[in-house]
Amino acid sequence: MIRIAVLGAGRIGQVHATSVASNARAKLVAVVDAVPAAAAKLAQKHGCEAAGDPLAIIARADVDAVVIGTPTDTHVDLVLAAAKAGKAVLCEKPIDLDIGRATVALQQVEKVGARVMMGFNRRFDPSAAAMKRAIDAGDVGALEQVIITSRDPGLAPYEYIAHSGGIFRDMTIHDFDMARWLLGEEPVEIVATASRMVDPNLSKYDDFDTVMVLMRTKSGRQCHINCSRRAVYGYDQRMEAFGSAGMVQNDNLRPTTLRRFSQSTTEAREPLLNFFLERYMDSYRAELDAFLDALERSAAMPVTVRDGCQALRLADCANESVRTGRVVSIS
Amino acid sequence: MIRIAVLGAGRIGQVHATSVASNARAKLVAVVDAVPAAAAKLAQKHGCEAAGDPLAIIARADVDAVVIGTPTDTHVDLVLAAAKAGKAVLCEKPIDLDIGRATVALQQVEKVGARVMMGFNRRFDPSAAAMKRAIDAGDVGALEQVIITSRDPGLAPYEYIAHSGGIFRDMTIHDFDMARWLLGEEPVEIVATASRMVDPNLSKYDDFDTVMVLMRTKSGRQCHINCSRRAVYGYDQRMEAFGSAGMVQNDNLRPTTLRRFSQSTTEAREPLLNFFLERYMDSYRAELDAFLDALERSAAMPVTVRDGCQALRLADCANESVRTGRVVSIS
Amino acid sequence: MIRIAVLGAGRIGQVHATSVASNARAKLVAVVDAVPAAAAKLAQKHGCEAAGDPLAIIARADVDAVVIGTPTDTHVDLVLAAAKAGKAVLCEKPIDLDIGRATVALQQVEKVGARVMMGFNRRFDPSAAAMKRAIDAGDVGALEQVIITSRDPGLAPYEYIAHSGGIFRDMTIHDFDMARWLLGEEPVEIVATASRMVDPNLSKYDDFDTVMVLMRTKSGRQCHINCSRRAVYGYDQRMEAFGSAGMVQNDNLRPTTLRRFSQSTTEAREPLLNFFLERYMDSYRAELDAFLDALERSAAMPVTVRDGCQALRLADCANESVRTGRVVSIS
Amino acid sequence: MIRIAVLGAGRIGQVHATSVASNARAKLVAVVDAVPAAAAKLAQKHGCEAAGDPLAIIARADVDAVVIGTPTDTHVDLVLAAAKAGKAVLCEKPIDLDIGRATVALQQVEKVGARVMMGFNRRFDPSAAAMKRAIDAGDVGALEQVIITSRDPGLAPYEYIAHSGGIFRDMTIHDFDMARWLLGEEPVEIVATASRMVDPNLSKYDDFDTVMVLMRTKSGRQCHINCSRRAVYGYDQRMEAFGSAGMVQNDNLRPTTLRRFSQSTTEAREPLLNFFLERYMDSYRAELDAFLDALERSAAMPVTVRDGCQALRLADCANESVRTGRVVSIS
Repeated sequence: MIRIAVLGAGRIGQVHATSVASNARAKLVAVVDAVPAAAAKLAQKHGCEAAGDPLAIIARADVDAVVIGTPTDTHVDLVLAAAKAGKAVLCEKPIDLDIGRATVALQQVEKVGARVMMGFNRRFDPSAAAMKRAIDAGDVGALEQVIITSRDPGLAPYEYIAHSGGIFRDMTIHDFDMARWLLGEEPVEIVATASRMVDPNLSKYDDFDTVMVLMRTKSGRQCHINCSRRAVYGYDQRMEAFGSAGMVQNDNLRPTTLRRFSQSTTEAREPLLNFFLERYMDSYRAELDAFLDALERSAAMPVTVRDGCQALRLADCANESVRTGRVVSIS
Repeated sequence: MIRIAVLGAGRIGQVHATSVASNARAKLVAVVDAVPAAAAKLAQKHGCEAAGDPLAIIARADVDAVVIGTPTDTHVDLVLAAAKAGKAVLCEKPIDLDIGRATVALQQVEKVGARVMMGFNRRFDPSAAAMKRAIDAGDVGALEQVIITSRDPGLAPYEYIAHSGGIFRDMTIHDFDMARWLLGEEPVEIVATASRMVDPNLSKYDDFDTVMVLMRTKSGRQCHINCSRRAVYGYDQRMEAFGSAGMVQNDNLRPTTLRRFSQSTTEAREPLLNFFLERYMDSYRAELDAFLDALERSAAMPVTVRDGCQALRLADCANESVRTGRVVSIS
Repeated sequence: MIRIAVLGAGRIGQVHATSVASNARAKLVAVVDAVPAAAAKLAQKHGCEAAGDPLAIIARADVDAVVIGTPTDTHVDLVLAAAKAGKAVLCEKPIDLDIGRATVALQQVEKVGARVMMGFNRRFDPSAAAMKRAIDAGDVGALEQVIITSRDPGLAPYEYIAHSGGIFRDMTIHDFDMARWLLGEEPVEIVATASRMVDPNLSKYDDFDTVMVLMRTKSGRQCHINCSRRAVYGYDQRMEAFGSAGMVQNDNLRPTTLRRFSQSTTEAREPLLNFFLERYMDSYRAELDAFLDALERSAAMPVTVRDGCQALRLADCANESVRTGRVVSIS
Repeated sequence: MIRIAVLGAGRIGQVHATSVASNARAKLVAVVDAVPAAAAKLAQKHGCEAAGDPLAIIARADVDAVVIGTPTDTHVDLVLAAAKAGKAVLCEKPIDLDIGRATVALQQVEKVGARVMMGFNRRFDPSAAAMKRAIDAGDVGALEQVIITSRDPGLAPYEYIAHSGGIFRDMTIHDFDMARWLLGEEPVEIVATASRMVDPNLSKYDDFDTVMVLMRTKSGRQCHINCSRRAVYGYDQRMEAFGSAGMVQNDNLRPTTLRRFSQSTTEAREPLLNFFLERYMDSYRAELDAFLDALERSAAMPVTVRDGCQALRLADCANESVRTGRVVSIS
């Protein structure tokens, strides 16, 4: 039984607390939040302790691991504190918005051999995992093209946008990680284009809502990503991998299989699962399982801080490409 | 070049005239209709002769074959006239509404060895033909169940209904032929239920608009057919064949592949092709090709008057089942 | 917190124990099985008591309700014991294989006003529930035809078949309940045909493996059900409801959305979820929620013993139809 | 009746000759080919004249229009000869492989007001046309992203590749035209990446087999195109248009609707229509109709030489982007 504290009682902290509490291999020891009421409410729901100071919880002997779901700017400090204390960590993405700080964290984590897993939960989505297995099994032969469509149902509030780090580091970062994972090679070149089609006010935040990305790996594999902050038909998450022996595709999920035929429409399907908490619900549970597997077997973490840094680097290079209007080489 | 006259210049006669005129192996010699203007108009369109007397045309030396698309009650007489004259015949279904007359016609046709093909065009629909080939190739293993859904887009006018012979002999007869063809065995038992859900006025015509049929063959194969005279979402034509090694299904056709995603609906597809002239357009051309093939190769007709009689018999037994409320044995 | 004991620690008892243990509104007090080791193992898994005597557990003051997952021939006695003790009951289908015993149980349950819910779990499947809601909301207009396809992945062992009560009472009974529920009216006539296509040895058990059913309600609504004990492509569970304003359909579930395109096949999808425990996993949880809802709100049970008797009666009439070769009126 | 000569009796000339011969509004006067046997064979098939000198045919009084399906390097000369002779022209793409020559041709065509239509047949594909109509009708709201997938079933022979002008001018040019048409705005920036994943020997021809393109219009609309010279599952032609009110998609065509379910695969569909002659068969007929419509109504040509030049320019800029590794501005 691995004893876990969840740091952060916000939206994502609640998801992790539920995963931990309902996992037979884990015990939820405490939830921590700077807002006492938030911690108390979540702790009560799961019958565990509430606390306000993450460092005190990290230090406790009856805590084997922490799940970090606090604001992004605290991730590095908490990861390093846990690493020093010899505690395992499952840390929400991104590791940091600043690649410099992220790289320092990576170096320290690797230096002390800390057990830190980055929370790129989509790798654990059953359909994404099935696609990866199919690619690894050679079902598409030599991989040549990857196409990722990733569109949010609606624009986030301005206060969120303001601290999000911009669309590439906040939203597309998931797709950068997915691209790296599926491609099986590091991209060496990237070019991006970005528009404000949904909301021109995003210029105040130096941000965009509609982007397209092209990447190339050393061996010539190609990847396209398209994102929008607003798809009125719902959260659109699709992927395609193409190669010498064929293609695999993943489609969106819907709550039921119902199809409707009427005078005005034929074969209309149910709306898409609305947003990431619904769409990727299974992935958070599977992510925790993968974390526990790695801990129990003393195996390598399935997603590392290095993965977190690489995805962040791609986001930064995409921003540079938009800023300069050039193709950017990834060193 | 097989020289063909089309008898009947109505809706179905026009379809056949176009098929003949555009077929490189056939020559459209004449179109015949009791209404001179109708014959003239169709003849002019295709640059052929117009005539009013089908028997005179049948007798002509420069006519090798006739396509019969006249009213149902003339079919038997015209088939037999052509048979006596040694002309090949492609005759629209049904051979007759009266099984007695139909059987007499069958006997005479077989006695003189006349070359008569019944126009069950759906057998030549590319998807139906692919399903039949898959069954024959063993793709579903030993066939066990066949399910046919057959729904018209809307109720025909009362004047049509009045002379149609009723839903089983007019509409379901196509499905009875399809069932026999796919099952590969004759049904030995049939039971049917019939309702007036679309229009209670059909009681005046002793007719129904909503029916379900069950049939069983000697070896135990089972078949279900459901029909409605009104599907508001369009002409619904689907089939399923199930067996020891799997299943094959056919879906409806649509004019384009367009799928629409909006706030109110996701993945709505194009309306179904509206009715049989659009849906089965290809089948009429392929039916003529099969007729020409059989003539050129002196091969057996792919659909015979016997097939026409058997489908009619199933329709009659379905009517008897509805009338008596009993399962009917098919002798 | 409703305190529940689960009677029966077999396959279905385990499903219910897990549902109860993970439901925040329920407390799993005990699991009961005649086989001590089975009870002990399941109790240990969920950290509750193990017991051998269901009547003793039913009598306990700290048990508010029981879930009955014991062998079919014990259902009536346990339901009535719980009813007398004033305990609520969620009882697996069927209520009994004998309609006489079932009817007596129904009378006593209704007489004492006992709170008994029958476990027709499929009504709580999200897709089935969405279809029912769509029908009730008028999305198909006046309902006219219901078509249910229900095929198991493979034949059950002979020892199971021997005590199953036959395909209609064991397997199709779920579809009879679904049909009644969707039709919104009681069938007044039924006819069935049954074959041994999968395994001729079933004649030893007077059983069949391949069946088709037709039913009609008083107002003329029609229903077709087809079942097979063996679909090599997996557990096939589909439904269609057709009416004056359109149609709704439910398709099968698959573990992921992956589609594969290769030289030999295009757009092959994942295998179907294999059998009822996987396919209807969600429905068991939702069923328990509906049971708890009814208890908490003192509302009518969503599925009653009367429903259990009606479905059983349809199964018996289907058997009679097969035996006599006749359409059977349902009194 | 518009009297038409088809120049070129090769693969594409045969397609056009069939379209003209079977169109009720056109008369096929002659087919012309430098190879006498080719012209004779095609002329015999359609019962028209055969000729060897295109200029003589263009000059004839009984020829109203010509369809140019000769080798690319003859297009400009034939277009201009026909223009001078006052004849209407339907010219296969590309207008020329050299943008300089193409631009001169454009200027002369516009100067004399010649009636010249470029043969971008895909605009007349029913599904593509339905997508364009949906966009124009506002079904996706303000258009924001267009994604085009365009993959050939297999690599063309080296002798074809050698004179093709390279993948962008030979293959992607169709997609560039489609992109411009769907976007409704001219791209102002383009970037492309190109690999040799299928056949490294293409380096001898300075050509590629696997490419991805990004384009941006002035208002910020974005477009992605991906191409491969080899998709083992068949000719893959899909499109997607996304905007403020939703999305429309087009899928591939298949010969029938058959779906197969077996132990090894579920819901495998028929192979894709193999290549452009099958896939776009309908579009060639509709293209001719659009040409005849424009002539009969003296309306603007639906696709112009300017369109041909713009698509060629995009192909040239894509090549420049690959050569320089830079984003290219389109003047």
